Amino acid sequence: MAGQDIEKLIKVVAKLPSLGTRSARRIVLQLIKKRETLLLPLIDALSQVAENIKTCEICGNYDTSSPCSICSSALRESHLLCVVQDVADLWAMERVSLFKGKYHVLGGVLSALDGVAPEDLNIDSLVERIHKEGITEVILALPATVDGQITSHYLVSRLKDSGAKITTLAQGIPMGAELDYMDEGTLQLALNSRKLL
Amino acid sequence: MAGQDIEKLIKVVAKLPSLGTRSARRIVLQLIKKRETLLLPLIDALSQVAENIKTCEICGNYDTSSPCSICSSALRESHLLCVVQDVADLWAMERVSLFKGKYHVLGGVLSALDGVAPEDLNIDSLVERIHKEGITEVILALPATVDGQITSHYLVSRLKDSGAKITTLAQGIPMGAELDYMDEGTLQLALNSRKLL
Repeated sequence: MAGQDIEKLIKVVAKLPSLGTRSARRIVLQLIKKRETLLLPLIDALSQVAENIKTCEICGNYDTSSPCSICSSALRESHLLCVVQDVADLWAMERVSLFKGKYHVLGGVLSALDGVAPEDLNIDSLVERIHKEGITEVILALPATVDGQITSHYLVSRLKDSGAKITTLAQGIPMGAELDYMDEGTLQLALNSRKLL
Repeated sequence: MAGQDIEKLIKVVAKLPSLGTRSARRIVLQLIKKRETLLLPLIDALSQVAENIKTCEICGNYDTSSPCSICSSALRESHLLCVVQDVADLWAMERVSLFKGKYHVLGGVLSALDGVAPEDLNIDSLVERIHKEGITEVILALPATVDGQITSHYLVSRLKDSGAKITTLAQGIPMGAELDYMDEGTLQLALNSRKLL
């Protein structure tokens, strides 16, 4: 009998992505065992996030301030806008530290199956930003899935009158990959988009 | 740039068992997205556990009271004691709802490799309980690993003068298992311990 408080915590932890009841139980046990070094610091870190983190009203990023530190930075090139599906993708781009423009988080991609229509995504605010902020290049960094590609096509049609150049991330063989582990679609695409050396 | 508070939370979450930085990031994003339905309930459940959960002074279980609800229950047979490695194993036994005795959590198993000696485990308190509580049967429910078996042997030698009957969980083919997926050790053991029908 694990006690009501513990059972309740296990249920909440099991709702987190990629966790089930079994791993939730292990995590909760570990938390109780390491009260001072794990449980209390976790409560502290969670509370700080709950208290301080806001959604940026301009780009949709999560930060302690809104507009976020990227949107309000004078060091970022404001004519370059990278459109991503989710904040996770924004973080992934930032880890590369190569892109020096600003971002726009769509909040998803169009999907007939999941019933995601253009009005469910932050597309109107994207169109508005391009006009208002004088953006000259929009980089579509959407997933290389069917839904991601459909969304890219839709965005191209919506933005074609904006005057901004619309580009997308290159597709091909990922770094370090063995050819015989690649799917045929990727190989075909890489062959078709081959570059002169 | 994920913000200091978020980075800190990701680091703490990544320390939890079976999680790495990547899954921690996904979890933290999900928590921020579902502030009301996930983040705040999680903080609440964690705080309650941090506030209320104690280690039972008798058996080592975690509960809101010490002695725990099992140790202080009048409905459990107090002459029957099940020795487990960890609170996780106690919970596993309780999920079966078959065992109606009490428990003793060793806090680990003997291990030459990890440097776990008898004095690192709750063995003295076990010996004391058997005498004091008039226990007639000790069920050793330790893992079926080399270290677990060595610990069982050690406990048998320590408890042989206690007057209590010492038993251990049956070993063999687990329920629902296909024979050709079983390791040779288990098959050998199951064959040697075969039962007359």
